[in-house]
Amino acid sequence: MKRIESPQNQHFKHWKKLHNRKWREKTGEYLLEGPHLIQEAMKKPDIVISLIYDEGFRQRENWMKNNADEFIVDTKLFKELAQTETPQGILAVCRVMDEQLIVKQGRFLLIDSVQDPGNLGTIIRTADACGMDGVYLGAGCVDLYNQKVLRSAQGSHFHLPIIKSDLTEVVNDLKQAGATVYGSSLQGTTLQNVAHSCENFALIIGNEGNGVDEELLSLTDVNVKIPIYGLAESMNVAVASGILMYSLRTAPLA
Amino acid sequence: MKRIESPQNQHFKHWKKLHNRKWREKTGEYLLEGPHLIQEAMKKPDIVISLIYDEGFRQRENWMKNNADEFIVDTKLFKELAQTETPQGILAVCRVMDEQLIVKQGRFLLIDSVQDPGNLGTIIRTADACGMDGVYLGAGCVDLYNQKVLRSAQGSHFHLPIIKSDLTEVVNDLKQAGATVYGSSLQGTTLQNVAHSCENFALIIGNEGNGVDEELLSLTDVNVKIPIYGLAESMNVAVASGILMYSLRTAPLA
Repeated sequence: MKRIESPQNQHFKHWKKLHNRKWREKTGEYLLEGPHLIQEAMKKPDIVISLIYDEGFRQRENWMKNNADEFIVDTKLFKELAQTETPQGILAVCRVMDEQLIVKQGRFLLIDSVQDPGNLGTIIRTADACGMDGVYLGAGCVDLYNQKVLRSAQGSHFHLPIIKSDLTEVVNDLKQAGATVYGSSLQGTTLQNVAHSCENFALIIGNEGNGVDEELLSLTDVNVKIPIYGLAESMNVAVASGILMYSLRTAPLA
Repeated sequence: MKRIESPQNQHFKHWKKLHNRKWREKTGEYLLEGPHLIQEAMKKPDIVISLIYDEGFRQRENWMKNNADEFIVDTKLFKELAQTETPQGILAVCRVMDEQLIVKQGRFLLIDSVQDPGNLGTIIRTADACGMDGVYLGAGCVDLYNQKVLRSAQGSHFHLPIIKSDLTEVVNDLKQAGATVYGSSLQGTTLQNVAHSCENFALIIGNEGNGVDEELLSLTDVNVKIPIYGLAESMNVAVASGILMYSLRTAPLA
């Protein structure tokens, strides 16, 4: 176990740069905060590279370590690494997994340009709850390994495959594999009027302000909308995604 | 139109104190930020008391004013009043409406101890979208007039009645009026197995960590849960509320 007291330490400098999306993408590593998320990451092999303890972290002895390197850092330095307001004394340096999904039968969520980290994390958490078989993340989404995305997903990053992809290709592949592809669109058919296919489908959801890209919407089998009964102009994208995923999953087969 | 240049101005001092929940409750006033929200508030009479413009706000001449007092303040002072990162140059001082609902037939949402402002605002926005007839807010919820609640509700504060209430009394009143009362509970019956009553019901949703108060749950007609098909331990409360409200509204009548 190494002790780090200087901000000039090479490890420390690397970790701090992981706050930056570009450095995360360059190194394929990211920081994960707090016991709950780290425990979820530990359930999968090869994700956690290093554990970083605040010098005051008490549960260190009993902490599951697998093969992770361990470091103790001064509280002052720990606070520079943590991005939560009340850090819980433990951080992990994690490896981005290069996940692949050979398209097959199943339920998939395609996320196009969701920008708000809280929304993206919440959508991934909901996709996990709804038992989706995988999530495809298009270009233009906020970084999957942004701290707020990790926090609002509550560990679901480690529960289902999440693959950065060209969504146009994914839609074409899924259609070839026989899936029904639904787009979410305010110009779509009202959800309850759509014939449901519950076991083999993909749903595309889109940007907070602009919705799903028009070109993608033109490739789908059918576009659906959630009816608005009140005076709201629209719904939050994470809530809408939840309603759509659960409706498509649980409605009777067409 | 008054111009305010000094932080010692009495109006300015009052407005700044409106950042504080206690002062909002004492005065029955709150601040609203940005053109979109203020336009929504203006659609109802008697809500907007004063309009506060940043000295650089360009649309002032064309701005709908109703009978609101108008003030221009120095940019430096305006920034002290605004709580968004990129203020849009206009604020309104609004009056808390004393809304009352005589319980009758309809669809109602009861919110018990939701703590996160983004969640509360999103839930109110979704209740509006789903055409709920009213929202009852129990003690223990974050303040309805917190800036983040106002922002995430996107104007829905002004679209449906939201009433601070003793939820136990509300449940009893609704049951007497013939409504079916649903509680949200991880120990409840799976949503799809519940006989739906779509036109006259109330749904109770609860705290992010602890769910709905046990005593309230014991008063309901039936408690329901959203099935978890994946590895997530739970769902975000705003997403869950959306799924429950829309399912109860749109499912066939029992």
